[in-house]
Amino acid sequence: MKKIEHLGIAVHNLQDSNALFEKLLGVGPYKQEEVASEGVMTSFFQNGPNKIELLAATDPTGPIAKFLEKKGEGIHHVAFEVDDIKAEMERLKYEGFTLLNEKPKKGADNKWVAFVHPKSANGVLVELCQEIKE
Amino acid sequence: MKKIEHLGIAVHNLQDSNALFEKLLGVGPYKQEEVASEGVMTSFFQNGPNKIELLAATDPTGPIAKFLEKKGEGIHHVAFEVDDIKAEMERLKYEGFTLLNEKPKKGADNKWVAFVHPKSANGVLVELCQEIKE
Repeated sequence: MKKIEHLGIAVHNLQDSNALFEKLLGVGPYKQEEVASEGVMTSFFQNGPNKIELLAATDPTGPIAKFLEKKGEGIHHVAFEVDDIKAEMERLKYEGFTLLNEKPKKGADNKWVAFVHPKSANGVLVELCQEIKE
Repeated sequence: MKKIEHLGIAVHNLQDSNALFEKLLGVGPYKQEEVASEGVMTSFFQNGPNKIELLAATDPTGPIAKFLEKKGEGIHHVAFEVDDIKAEMERLKYEGFTLLNEKPKKGADNKWVAFVHPKSANGVLVELCQEIKE
């Protein structure tokens, strides 16, 4: 766990929230990217060594749509940068954490990602992410 | 907004969560500190350029106790480091954000802090913090 790579925030309307977070952070999003497999449209803001990821649902049955329905807008997950996601997944399993996926999967922003179940991490949805290098 | 200074996570039992987050982050807390005015005991973990702050209630009528009662354990706030907290508060007010305090107040970890109301920031409780220099 090298740093907070990004903080994911679930929002209803990406356009409106892009404008709001541009005011908050003083900088606009550097990219917008759909992750069709997760039913989500994302936008990313750089903030020093960290990023803010806004997440809006594109699929009403996807995880972000469900989160918004249940909890409303707000912080959805925290993502930590790791050097070796497979090794880190093994380490966390050994330490007793429950992982939501068996293998790393392709996430937004050119990353391998894996998630830790919030029930095993004090209610926090933890993402591990590692830059994809070709 | 220079970086994510820390992420605040509300927990029921600080001792148990210190052990859990030590497993997650691979490093133990570097300090534990009570903020009596907020009815909270905190612990801090370094994670590269960022920190994780665990928050447990000491006052059953304080904001963390209320958060835990309403929402359970999980991410409570995100804190951004700023150089000039008063200027940043003015800027955010001008941009239409609602601030929860009129003046910076002393927070944990030697910081001046101020909060943005989550209703004006897509459900996210945003903290501004600036290192106190004597």
